[in-house]
Amino acid sequence: MRDEPLVIFTPSGRRGRVPAGITVLEAARRLGVDLESVCGGRGICSRCQVVPGRGAFAKHGVQVEEDALSPRNEVEARYDRLRGLAEGRRLGCQARIQGDLVVDVPPESQLHRQVIRKSATERAMAMDPAVRAFHVAVAAAGLDEMGGDFQRLRQALESQWGIGGLRAEPVLLARIQGVLRAADWAVTAVVHDEGAGPPLLVDLLAGLPEGPLCGLAIDLGSTTIAGHLVALDDGRVLASCGIMNPQIRFGEDLMSRVSHAMMNPGGAAEMTQAVRAGLGGLVEALAREAGVDPRRICDAVLVGNPVMHHLLLGIDPVELGQAPFAAATTDALSLPAREVGLDIAPSARLYMLPIIAGHVGADAAAVVLAEAPQSSDRPVLIVDVGTNAEIILGDRTRVLACSSPTGPAFEGAQISCGQRAAPGAIERVRIDPLTKEPRFRVIGVAPWSDEPGFAEAIRGVGITGICGSGIIEGVAEMRMAGLLDASGLIGSAEQTGSPRCLPQGRTQAYLLHGGDPEGGPQITVTQGDIRAIQLAKSALYAGARLLMDEFGIDSLDRVVLAGAFGAHVSPLHALVLGMIPDCPPERVTSAGNAAGTGARMALCSRAARREIEAEVRRIIRVETALAPRFQEHFVAANAIPHATDDHASLRGTVNLPELAFNAWGEGGRGRRKRRAQTSGDPPEA
Amino acid sequence: MRDEPLVIFTPSGRRGRVPAGITVLEAARRLGVDLESVCGGRGICSRCQVVPGRGAFAKHGVQVEEDALSPRNEVEARYDRLRGLAEGRRLGCQARIQGDLVVDVPPESQLHRQVIRKSATERAMAMDPAVRAFHVAVAAAGLDEMGGDFQRLRQALESQWGIGGLRAEPVLLARIQGVLRAADWAVTAVVHDEGAGPPLLVDLLAGLPEGPLCGLAIDLGSTTIAGHLVALDDGRVLASCGIMNPQIRFGEDLMSRVSHAMMNPGGAAEMTQAVRAGLGGLVEALAREAGVDPRRICDAVLVGNPVMHHLLLGIDPVELGQAPFAAATTDALSLPAREVGLDIAPSARLYMLPIIAGHVGADAAAVVLAEAPQSSDRPVLIVDVGTNAEIILGDRTRVLACSSPTGPAFEGAQISCGQRAAPGAIERVRIDPLTKEPRFRVIGVAPWSDEPGFAEAIRGVGITGICGSGIIEGVAEMRMAGLLDASGLIGSAEQTGSPRCLPQGRTQAYLLHGGDPEGGPQITVTQGDIRAIQLAKSALYAGARLLMDEFGIDSLDRVVLAGAFGAHVSPLHALVLGMIPDCPPERVTSAGNAAGTGARMALCSRAARREIEAEVRRIIRVETALAPRFQEHFVAANAIPHATDDHASLRGTVNLPELAFNAWGEGGRGRRKRRAQTSGDPPEA
Repeated sequence: MRDEPLVIFTPSGRRGRVPAGITVLEAARRLGVDLESVCGGRGICSRCQVVPGRGAFAKHGVQVEEDALSPRNEVEARYDRLRGLAEGRRLGCQARIQGDLVVDVPPESQLHRQVIRKSATERAMAMDPAVRAFHVAVAAAGLDEMGGDFQRLRQALESQWGIGGLRAEPVLLARIQGVLRAADWAVTAVVHDEGAGPPLLVDLLAGLPEGPLCGLAIDLGSTTIAGHLVALDDGRVLASCGIMNPQIRFGEDLMSRVSHAMMNPGGAAEMTQAVRAGLGGLVEALAREAGVDPRRICDAVLVGNPVMHHLLLGIDPVELGQAPFAAATTDALSLPAREVGLDIAPSARLYMLPIIAGHVGADAAAVVLAEAPQSSDRPVLIVDVGTNAEIILGDRTRVLACSSPTGPAFEGAQISCGQRAAPGAIERVRIDPLTKEPRFRVIGVAPWSDEPGFAEAIRGVGITGICGSGIIEGVAEMRMAGLLDASGLIGSAEQTGSPRCLPQGRTQAYLLHGGDPEGGPQITVTQGDIRAIQLAKSALYAGARLLMDEFGIDSLDRVVLAGAFGAHVSPLHALVLGMIPDCPPERVTSAGNAAGTGARMALCSRAARREIEAEVRRIIRVETALAPRFQEHFVAANAIPHATDDHASLRGTVNLPELAFNAWGEGGRGRRKRRAQTSGDPPEA
Repeated sequence: MRDEPLVIFTPSGRRGRVPAGITVLEAARRLGVDLESVCGGRGICSRCQVVPGRGAFAKHGVQVEEDALSPRNEVEARYDRLRGLAEGRRLGCQARIQGDLVVDVPPESQLHRQVIRKSATERAMAMDPAVRAFHVAVAAAGLDEMGGDFQRLRQALESQWGIGGLRAEPVLLARIQGVLRAADWAVTAVVHDEGAGPPLLVDLLAGLPEGPLCGLAIDLGSTTIAGHLVALDDGRVLASCGIMNPQIRFGEDLMSRVSHAMMNPGGAAEMTQAVRAGLGGLVEALAREAGVDPRRICDAVLVGNPVMHHLLLGIDPVELGQAPFAAATTDALSLPAREVGLDIAPSARLYMLPIIAGHVGADAAAVVLAEAPQSSDRPVLIVDVGTNAEIILGDRTRVLACSSPTGPAFEGAQISCGQRAAPGAIERVRIDPLTKEPRFRVIGVAPWSDEPGFAEAIRGVGITGICGSGIIEGVAEMRMAGLLDASGLIGSAEQTGSPRCLPQGRTQAYLLHGGDPEGGPQITVTQGDIRAIQLAKSALYAGARLLMDEFGIDSLDRVVLAGAFGAHVSPLHALVLGMIPDCPPERVTSAGNAAGTGARMALCSRAARREIEAEVRRIIRVETALAPRFQEHFVAANAIPHATDDHASLRGTVNLPELAFNAWGEGGRGRRKRRAQTSGDPPEA
């Protein structure tokens, strides 16, 4: 046996001489190698498995002999018998180093491993969770033992893991005596350590935990609540689920929720209760899907806009609804998860990302965390489209953010045939510019409407309406096909040459499906639908333009569409509709649910939490509601794609017919009359 | 104006040169003088009042000129007009130093003043509370203001008071927006700062608070819950109140409570709920008595034995009822007061003193804090008598502690005519050793029963029973009057020569009141009462003796009787009864409710909390239940005053007749038979 064998760990490449006879686990600790162990070297958790090399390693200049490690011992043999230990694998806590060694740490034995996953977002999660599990042997209670059971547990964590100053809440103090005795004093402490303040005991499990710890990432939107159950060892998503926000019954958009709180005593509390109950249902659904006991979920992260953020916390959102839009608090928060009604592990914490301002929320902060505009060399525009749009523009020099009240039209609400994205909804639309005939795809049905098999496939589902992405594509296609002019007027059958343009009072509607000759209910895009979409897209465009003014740029060369919705909108159609300022279409990309991704990152990594907390303090928030230029941009953005911006990049790619359908139906008296009716004034005689 | 006038503060004697023109308050801060200010020098709180001297101060070598201070200014004039400023007084934040000055800080302007009060316990409270009030002007919300309202409040506290890192719980975040606006951004922040971790916002008040902040000190006993409402500026008691512990219905003593938890599923939770509801009622009663809104109580401290401590926290006490008597936790705890159902200020904390061991509680720790045996040059025995007795013996070298299950006999329970200490109860008894005739005093009636006016005074109250101190004095007096022998047998009328000794089956009872010739209900002390008292006092005596063995001493020269009960027991009678080992009677003193005093000290002073936390770690706990010598001591202590200890000090003071009433009624078969019946076995044929 050499006195000080040379040990090289792969893949880290860390190397050094260690005293002969120490274990591989001990050598890893001395050399700062990331090798996991939950049981503290007792040979029961098997998390420290390693793969020793054999033979010559020219690259490292090392010859590894047969006896470089001590032979497999009793503990390993027992583990192999009970749970199986793969060929060539050793337990790092048992194998002792006797000679020069090259040893590989497989990914599942790395504690802080970087996991590259091909998920929906293809996002690498850096693992550094706030919650970890530690197996400890606690001194049994005895007449000579000092302190209570908790003090002896704390002492065990300190001496066996170097974790000092553990604290526990009464809810957990009430459990530890039973668990310690049931487990014969060998338990796993689930410990939350945010880095600030003493670590907190989140749960105490008898013996070793089955499977990895898991946590909850929640994106609390005005319309939908999306949740992911995430394994805290590698960040993989164990289950995902979305539910409607039960607050919908109090109003569809943020302002109507705030109004409900203002107009009804107890209204805010009612909405708080509703959203907490909704979260409860979501957690149950996620746990069921993943086959996990909800009480075993031991950490949670939540993002949401300021109104959702405040309502969840039980804060009346009234100040968020009126200038100067003061938030009660903007900092990141860490609180007992049970305080917002989350029935997960007894002392689990809920981390809420900081909000950027009273009108730019923690969801926007999560988008910044996920998309990192502050690391971009050139300015990038990020829009997260939901009932409220979060808009971010930034590069290495600075990041600006605002929000804009687009309303729920992009989600299919306020649209005559609109519906949520669900089976039966038209989600994609194409219109032939020559024949003006449409074809479309329906959620739940694979073929397009003009493809073989559609007729059979659609029978079970039916065509029930148009969802958000369907209406956006539909309006953009109508514009490209010459059915709609730049001002947003639908042409008549005479003007367009299409019998699908049907008169509706003084305006026209385009028949997408139904009636003769197809039969079934009529699905149309009406003039009112176009107006609703124009209002929504103008608000979005104007917000982006305002940020560009503040940033001092006049054009964009990269746009990221975020939001669950962003994943379903074609960038080209978004440009044609004029939702976003001009940009080369190939430079408009979708980031999927970036807010949800940001929430998952914060769940998996304490460093991510610190990063976004620091970044949010640097973000420059821009107020849309009171900026005079916002109003100008809004008016100019009413046209499709825009009244004054030339959309040069877009026009290089697609044809936008120059048309004007102002002969009859709109303009002059007629237009005024419509507006008067809409606003509730008495119609002109 | 001198450039650097010399300023001398009295009574502290602090002195130094300061730049001319600064205020007295600023000078006090620079010289480290304890001068209070709540409003931060705005001239509105008047807490910084000072009394400037005039003329020559030979002692200090200073001549104070007329213009040593700037003349009274507008702010002071306004304050004088609105609220009155006494002659010769100045506001320290307004008066500017222009020349050499001697200035007195009156007690009410000192923040950490030592208040010597002639209260029930005559205890000086060193004021250093965990909670303090700070008046701040917060920047109003505006479009250009960064952060939320809470962030601006925190910033104001930091810049105006140097208090950084404030945190707030959601329950308070939900309130601050309304308070800030109602108060036009001038508010008082009530801040809890335990010294460890960031300070916590406990409440936010519009404007300046009315009156001092107040806190709650609670002694949670098995039988009674005593509470004090304490002003946190000087420690005075604003209200005191005691209620029955509603857990009584689950069992009278600790072991019966633990049994209830063991035998009934949900029994522990039921008792937790009962005691929390009881505390709620106590807080309401205290607030009503003091005329204070309970929501304005902003700190709380609680002490109690381990079973009460655990049940309040929702911890099943089952482990405390069986060897090795493991507590779930022994450390001091700080938790949200609302978590145990205390409905006081929104984010008020509850501090619970550490418990010493599974069988020696936080009430004993509070007694140690109040009585400080660790500072005594000679060993002092402290007994805190309740349903459970806490016994402490110590001096500078070491402190020992144990508990002993005396049961509730000392509180009037298990006594045939026993009752709680309430109007109508006989509380003091004297028996003439010649005539064997009794006289007594009744709670609620000033004259003794043989004094003029008693007959009239007693009419409204009646004589309803005997309370704890009454039975102790009664039994001791019977022993001294020769009505009772050393074994605890009551003599017959023939043996004692007193017609008040009435036969009851095979035993005797002593008629204290009633029957012929006085009329009314008979109040007697029965042989069964004597046995109950003997059991209780033997347990107490044996515990004290066990500690003396461990300490290595054979006699005492100082005893402190603590507990609400201790205040009402005559030391001489306690010695005659043999409740405590022999000691010169004049060296047996009462400390009143020492546990309650300890709780108040911890409420008023963070230093006291740190002190007892450190001290408890040094205390040597002694286990009575499993010590063989405890049993021996217990048996020997059955005699009155004792079978073997000679009670030399006592016998030098009083006469203890040598008697033995074993002729009939007890002894031999009769005694065995009684015992068999008591234990539930079938009586002998």
